Amino acid sequence: MTRPEKHDFPVVQARHFLEPGPIVLVSSHHAGKSNIMTLGWHSILAFAPSLVGCMISSGNHSFEMIRQSGECVINLPTVELADTVSRIGNCTGSTIDKFAEFGLTAKPAQMVSAPLIDECFASFECKLYDDAMVPNYNYFIFEIVKAHVADGPEHPKTMHYMGDGEFMIAGDVIERKELFTKVS
Amino acid sequence: MTRPEKHDFPVVQARHFLEPGPIVLVSSHHAGKSNIMTLGWHSILAFAPSLVGCMISSGNHSFEMIRQSGECVINLPTVELADTVSRIGNCTGSTIDKFAEFGLTAKPAQMVSAPLIDECFASFECKLYDDAMVPNYNYFIFEIVKAHVADGPEHPKTMHYMGDGEFMIAGDVIERKELFTKVS
Repeated sequence: MTRPEKHDFPVVQARHFLEPGPIVLVSSHHAGKSNIMTLGWHSILAFAPSLVGCMISSGNHSFEMIRQSGECVINLPTVELADTVSRIGNCTGSTIDKFAEFGLTAKPAQMVSAPLIDECFASFECKLYDDAMVPNYNYFIFEIVKAHVADGPEHPKTMHYMGDGEFMIAGDVIERKELFTKVS
Repeated sequence: MTRPEKHDFPVVQARHFLEPGPIVLVSSHHAGKSNIMTLGWHSILAFAPSLVGCMISSGNHSFEMIRQSGECVINLPTVELADTVSRIGNCTGSTIDKFAEFGLTAKPAQMVSAPLIDECFASFECKLYDDAMVPNYNYFIFEIVKAHVADGPEHPKTMHYMGDGEFMIAGDVIERKELFTKVS
């Protein structure tokens, strides 16, 4: 698997990659161990601070790791990782070291203890910003504090989960800039 | 613009259309008036009840209409509506009747006062389920109480907003069912 070269990216523009709704790989680190989970239930909540909300089911091994450490990395895989993404979502970190099992590279992050997944197109380092919705909805609000994005391609083939083992793959990009009075 | 024939659809399966992250048109009705806004910041939160969280900026005319009425409809447009979606997101319902302005058909819903947008591929009738996050984050949690989905095509060309006047259009669908131990 390739490990794309990445550059720093403005955290306020994280929406460019997350708002289209891709499945992401959330990496975490707690008590000396790292883990990875798949996540489809997320949305941008604010530009600045750069907030993203994530529904992380308490049944996931990652749930307590993220709750306890207050950190994670949201990594953006592309279609070349379809098999790996599927497998990661169908096993548990309680018995498996997913980085080793799936041959993924845990690269040190800059601002959090959770590792970047270097095979992904982009990685967003996150700190827990508000856990008020965790008890009722398992809903974590994170602040993206550092972003790393591959140098190319401009439009990565992200995967968008539809349930039932199916993914929609990112298609063509169209623009309607002339119809936007305030481009945001 | 065509108005696709629709059938009832199980609300617990709404994620099939919303989890991939499309831009949606949220219709509302309050004090005798209807409105429409574009929304990209949403995510599924639960299957049953069928919950979806939406960040609706308080700057939108729809904000108070939805907060007061406690209802809305989440409508799913496809790429044929790209111009209309862009225009709806760049004007305000405080001075414009968007249904009239954009030639859209307000079809009565079954369980809420907000109208369905009949030109859309699907419509999800929603009741406000929890507004605890509205004061801090403008974040509404809705329960989808009724779903209407077009008879076809199987894979609609939904639009996924990237910011800056650009949309990614839904591309190919791949499946990895054989790698899913529990298909959900």
